[in-house]
Amino acid sequence: VTAPALPHGFLAAGIRCGIKASSRGPDLGLLLADEARPASALFTRNQLTGAHVTVCREQLARSGGLVRAVLVNSGNANCATGAEGVEDARELSRALAARIGCPAEQVLMMSTGVIGARLPADRIGSALGDLVAAASAAGGEDFARAIMTTDTGPKTADATSESGATVTGFAKGSGMIHPDMATMLAFLLVDGADGPSDPNPTSGSSQRELLRRVTDRTFHCTTVDGDTSPNDTVLLWGRGAGPGLEDALTAVARRLARSIAADGEGATRLVTIHVTGGRDEAEATRIGRAVAVSPLVKTAIAGRDPNWGRIVSAACSAGIPVDPDRMTLAIGGSVVYRCGRPLPAAEPAAHAHLTEQREVEMALDLGIGTASSEVWTCDFTAEYVEINAHYRS
Amino acid sequence: VTAPALPHGFLAAGIRCGIKASSRGPDLGLLLADEARPASALFTRNQLTGAHVTVCREQLARSGGLVRAVLVNSGNANCATGAEGVEDARELSRALAARIGCPAEQVLMMSTGVIGARLPADRIGSALGDLVAAASAAGGEDFARAIMTTDTGPKTADATSESGATVTGFAKGSGMIHPDMATMLAFLLVDGADGPSDPNPTSGSSQRELLRRVTDRTFHCTTVDGDTSPNDTVLLWGRGAGPGLEDALTAVARRLARSIAADGEGATRLVTIHVTGGRDEAEATRIGRAVAVSPLVKTAIAGRDPNWGRIVSAACSAGIPVDPDRMTLAIGGSVVYRCGRPLPAAEPAAHAHLTEQREVEMALDLGIGTASSEVWTCDFTAEYVEINAHYRS
Repeated sequence: VTAPALPHGFLAAGIRCGIKASSRGPDLGLLLADEARPASALFTRNQLTGAHVTVCREQLARSGGLVRAVLVNSGNANCATGAEGVEDARELSRALAARIGCPAEQVLMMSTGVIGARLPADRIGSALGDLVAAASAAGGEDFARAIMTTDTGPKTADATSESGATVTGFAKGSGMIHPDMATMLAFLLVDGADGPSDPNPTSGSSQRELLRRVTDRTFHCTTVDGDTSPNDTVLLWGRGAGPGLEDALTAVARRLARSIAADGEGATRLVTIHVTGGRDEAEATRIGRAVAVSPLVKTAIAGRDPNWGRIVSAACSAGIPVDPDRMTLAIGGSVVYRCGRPLPAAEPAAHAHLTEQREVEMALDLGIGTASSEVWTCDFTAEYVEINAHYRS
Repeated sequence: VTAPALPHGFLAAGIRCGIKASSRGPDLGLLLADEARPASALFTRNQLTGAHVTVCREQLARSGGLVRAVLVNSGNANCATGAEGVEDARELSRALAARIGCPAEQVLMMSTGVIGARLPADRIGSALGDLVAAASAAGGEDFARAIMTTDTGPKTADATSESGATVTGFAKGSGMIHPDMATMLAFLLVDGADGPSDPNPTSGSSQRELLRRVTDRTFHCTTVDGDTSPNDTVLLWGRGAGPGLEDALTAVARRLARSIAADGEGATRLVTIHVTGGRDEAEATRIGRAVAVSPLVKTAIAGRDPNWGRIVSAACSAGIPVDPDRMTLAIGGSVVYRCGRPLPAAEPAAHAHLTEQREVEMALDLGIGTASSEVWTCDFTAEYVEINAHYRS
């Protein structure tokens, strides 16, 4: 895997600092902009939050959403660490700001990894000089590796908008299923081609709304086990404008979201659930998510079983008014259920699809409207249970 | 296991009819009252429903809630079988009514087992004579066995109220996790000691309200995997009055609900989650359920890992306003988390509790009020995945 180039004006780095005891890989990452650029972030809805959520919110409020650098450590989530943990994140943000010569509030710090243990703040502080020195336009892959926890590989994507804005994305996460609650972290860097005289439609509230729209259709459509982590964060950072920017951002976020589902712990299948015929997109998404999170559906896929009954049942339990007598379900293009009744003759072809393809497709038509949505998940294997049962014991 | 005696006025039977191909056990059960008695039922909230849900609702509306007999088959859920399946259930209800000599609308029929296949209605119809002939006051255990699907044993409980009303309960279910979506079925039979001149506070809407209160505190507090089946049904049937009746019903339903969680597929631990210090009982229950359904919590218990972080995180994601800095969590009496911080010294004792006890206890105090609730679940093992992945393939 080679990471894509960074947008103009951004540098990246990833080095080994020694936070992760269990691996020899890099565990401290940096994204650095040539000047402060506008940024918006969305954070976890969990009420247990990592210290970085508190501190990032403070910094963005103080800086008016202008960010010069983002520091990320893996191996320690700095969560359930009390007031001391919050102060650790503040102090490291200040130290990096002093080193690069920017106002203290223009540095964000994020953490992912085990919870309940203090950050090795001295060790991280001592590594900041090497980290800044390592920052380069080619540092994307080092950064992508430095933010990994149980991920089996780095997750990156890029795109160019119709008007020439470049978007590069990074993410980490095997869903939200790290044994000690690691996180999904995602970074969307953007640089527009229209130059500094261009108005800035991605700053302030409109940038935030853009990020929310993109996230609702991408990261919020991915599940591994339905557990929401205390540290989940998505950051959109940079200037961009012109036609096609939202499409480019959505394409990058979608690839990252799919790669998170594909890399779910123990997973052997990436599952795409296309929901069509809904009354509106939000309802279609909720129904797709109810299917995507069902352990019965996910274990059936692990067994390569085209179990239409579990899928239709989960869709009918989402709390959205639907009619099973109007639903049609296809697995790998084979219609296994139509209007209240199974079609057993289609099951062998559906079984073959589940057996032979690593990326499997379900299409559920609700038959009650014209809205659609797409949701991603993975299969649920005995290895998932083994990984999560025996991590600490 | 010996089933408890039936309340006065009730008979029961269970025979082998040949519906279940995979077992030689009984698969057709009967509960028979000496005269029509008042009954109330609660059905699944899933919008995919088995045929019996439709037909039971019709019958109860027509009879004004008077029931003379309940016929139950296992091995086939009569779900996703279209109008023919509904007609099968109607026809078998009529046939049983004719045989015992009661109005057709006073017979209920329920089904549990695989879905998408027609009932063997002729075979069941031919067995009704033997079934009625087998009905006896000692038939409770045969009935309890006849309604089992993936259950590893019959589930029964009984109690006597303060005023002498007798309550006998039967249930089936390994949660809601039968591979082809079997169901939870539960039957609460009651007979009061106050005789026929007693007013009937358990009939009509007040009986229904009583059943809802009992169910909210018992069956609705049990989860195995969060999937709601199309056939779930709870029936309260008989006359009863006087002080302590609700307590007796709740005690019976509670024991049945706990036995369902304990018998979850692949489970090795029954987990009781005591939630205290909530603002109100409904909120405490929702928080307990969020913990009980979390795959991360359930896999941790399978690994005997006192993983306070996953438990607190799940409690903080229930959509209820809480404050992790006010929460206290004990596992087996050992406080592993208090007011935002872990207490690592308590973990060995908590680990020993999870390792040594088959019934494990968690106590989560929210620190924001005085309401409490209790919720039951089981651990989530690799065997669960194996059972559910490889059932049909």
